[in-house]
Amino acid sequence: MAHSVIDVIRAKRDGDRLDDEQIDWVVDAYTRGAVADEQMAALAMAILLRGMDRAEIARWTAAMIGSGERLDLSGVPRSTVDKHSTGGVGDKITLPLTPLVAACGAAVPQLSGRGLGHTGGTLDKLESVPGWRARLSAPEIRAQLAEIGAVVCAATEGIAPADRKLYALRDVTGTVESIPLIASSIMSKKIAEGAESLVLDVKCGSGAFMKDLEQARALADELVSIGAAHGVRTSALLTDMSVPLGSAVGNALEVAESVEVLRGGGPADVVELTLALAREMLAHAGLSDVDPAEVLASGKAYDSWRAMIGAQGGDPDAELPTAAHVETFAAPATGVLSTLDAYAVGLAAWRLGAGRARKEDAVQHAAGIRCLAKPGERVTEGAPLLELHTDTPEKLPAAREALAEAVAITAEAPAATPLILDTIRP
Amino acid sequence: MAHSVIDVIRAKRDGDRLDDEQIDWVVDAYTRGAVADEQMAALAMAILLRGMDRAEIARWTAAMIGSGERLDLSGVPRSTVDKHSTGGVGDKITLPLTPLVAACGAAVPQLSGRGLGHTGGTLDKLESVPGWRARLSAPEIRAQLAEIGAVVCAATEGIAPADRKLYALRDVTGTVESIPLIASSIMSKKIAEGAESLVLDVKCGSGAFMKDLEQARALADELVSIGAAHGVRTSALLTDMSVPLGSAVGNALEVAESVEVLRGGGPADVVELTLALAREMLAHAGLSDVDPAEVLASGKAYDSWRAMIGAQGGDPDAELPTAAHVETFAAPATGVLSTLDAYAVGLAAWRLGAGRARKEDAVQHAAGIRCLAKPGERVTEGAPLLELHTDTPEKLPAAREALAEAVAITAEAPAATPLILDTIRP
Repeated sequence: MAHSVIDVIRAKRDGDRLDDEQIDWVVDAYTRGAVADEQMAALAMAILLRGMDRAEIARWTAAMIGSGERLDLSGVPRSTVDKHSTGGVGDKITLPLTPLVAACGAAVPQLSGRGLGHTGGTLDKLESVPGWRARLSAPEIRAQLAEIGAVVCAATEGIAPADRKLYALRDVTGTVESIPLIASSIMSKKIAEGAESLVLDVKCGSGAFMKDLEQARALADELVSIGAAHGVRTSALLTDMSVPLGSAVGNALEVAESVEVLRGGGPADVVELTLALAREMLAHAGLSDVDPAEVLASGKAYDSWRAMIGAQGGDPDAELPTAAHVETFAAPATGVLSTLDAYAVGLAAWRLGAGRARKEDAVQHAAGIRCLAKPGERVTEGAPLLELHTDTPEKLPAAREALAEAVAITAEAPAATPLILDTIRP
Repeated sequence: MAHSVIDVIRAKRDGDRLDDEQIDWVVDAYTRGAVADEQMAALAMAILLRGMDRAEIARWTAAMIGSGERLDLSGVPRSTVDKHSTGGVGDKITLPLTPLVAACGAAVPQLSGRGLGHTGGTLDKLESVPGWRARLSAPEIRAQLAEIGAVVCAATEGIAPADRKLYALRDVTGTVESIPLIASSIMSKKIAEGAESLVLDVKCGSGAFMKDLEQARALADELVSIGAAHGVRTSALLTDMSVPLGSAVGNALEVAESVEVLRGGGPADVVELTLALAREMLAHAGLSDVDPAEVLASGKAYDSWRAMIGAQGGDPDAELPTAAHVETFAAPATGVLSTLDAYAVGLAAWRLGAGRARKEDAVQHAAGIRCLAKPGERVTEGAPLLELHTDTPEKLPAAREALAEAVAITAEAPAATPLILDTIRP
């Protein structure tokens, strides 16, 4: 089939749907370099402004999956179930969730990424554990899933190379914010990772990519629909991200908080979301009769964590790194903390060194923020409200600047916002 | 001013207007290479789909002019007036018009291009005159304008480099068909060429870029508005391009037809349009009292042609090249020729070798088509209707294929279409 990329661009530009052949061809040709970056950029902008229908999105996803290899987990002697979060501030849920669901009897292959911008990456967090390594081969992934049921590691190079190339292009061309492109990007990676089922945590609020519920719901609908089209049992939780999740924001700080949860403690919101996602995953895996709260309380999830960390070279008993400088941020008034803005806290943690501005930057393992109160709690003027952790104290003023509008204190307690807003099933 | 290209792309993508600083910065940064092709491609698609208002278009044009040099014609001791056609099949009007307006007392700096696609380029046509050279320096242009009043030559390298770069990008990214981008491209070059006034021939119909009158009028309005914003007296004729202009389509064939017009003969439509454009140009130049029809009849325009060709190394008395192969295309029925489709004839001439597919291709000087009848004339089945000229007879079947639907013959004469559809003034 000879196709002209200009005809494909024009078709989408003029509001037509792309047919299967056009989609297969343009994704493949772009991956091979036969379609240039400037041509794909124009097409991405046309897709952003004109949209794609469900069938186009499913085919686009299939073409991106087909650009690389699909991990073969068929030999793993457990039900495989994956989880993906669209990203939020303090979102360390993968860390307690993966060993918990493994301890319940399923296998969780968590192929993860590094953070860019104000939300951290799961690999960055785990790399604060001394000795832990992110890179596993496909046979290592399969062996660890069979034995322990829990793997968190870097995505292998062969997974959806079309998506990797397109994502980098979208990042520099103002074409990130397109639900069809976001949904196909997430799902191409997740489906290529080979799990039989998938639970999505679609976040909504200031600290999330999707700022309002309507957009988050639209994205969740697309994600669930793509999963169904590819024979992967998929559902999504819509969850609040207007406040940081838990108390800890930053790599080692979040690992420590995750360990607290696995040892039966930890902040209530982290526990609540971990259990809700675990129940949804266990239902997909045919393990609805297992109660994850019991498994968590039994210590078996913590045992799985130790096994998982150890299998990847990490020492679960090692001291986590601590920051050279810790300062407090005081409550500006007395009253009830009514707002603790997730985006502002995420941005401040990023400025303290917890995140990176460019892919090639390193992160500070110990940098970040601990929230000493959460909305609804009473605070006293001048008392510590946040702890700012960093190895580079020259960044403290910029972090404080990010926090200037983050906090509101009122006389009355605000109405409580539910953490889990909705569940989307096919 | 530090700008982020992604912010500029997002602003236009989301339907905002770009402010002057954003436009100046992004055009300059793109010309310098600080904004990448893929970023400008995304912005061009956003502009195509979201539009720009008049002030944005005027500023974008100014930024493209400012990316290079502006030809200084202030020392030319005549009124300077330029003409631009949006391109059509058989549109050789520049050839008789430039020396005619010069013979009437104005100076006409016609910086022209080469053809790409189904419409020919003025330089390609004149290069069929033995010895004629397209490349003049700025001092040569000024001297020839002062002495003869007529120059047709290649645009100098320094004119609107931003437009040159952006045009090449639009060509491969499906972002050509945007009135703001088309209008700013045309006007940035024309204004940078330094004439005090400008007449545009905006063509409309199958053989033109604009297929319908509404679009052509919208483009003409933008062009005239940009001219006014830059202090260049500008008006536009909207003219029909559903039928080839004149009888000749192809380089040497069109030169020969132009010489016929300059010697007092030639097809009626070519004469009509040449005189109409000349009157509009003379009005801008303050020479409304000169009657171009009289000057044409006097032979003075032909003298100017000879001087103009001679000054650029051409021999006005040399034999023009003729094609190695000439075949006829017979009328398929007896009756009145009601359609002779401009696009089909242009495409056939291009396939015969009159045009080029890629910038680096050469054209055949002698290739092309002569139309032996025009719509409204009676034709007889089997009698010659078109002559096909080529040096590469293997191209004849492809040319005949292009002509398959070009001709309609009916019992009754069709309603006559006016050649000049409207005049747009500020």
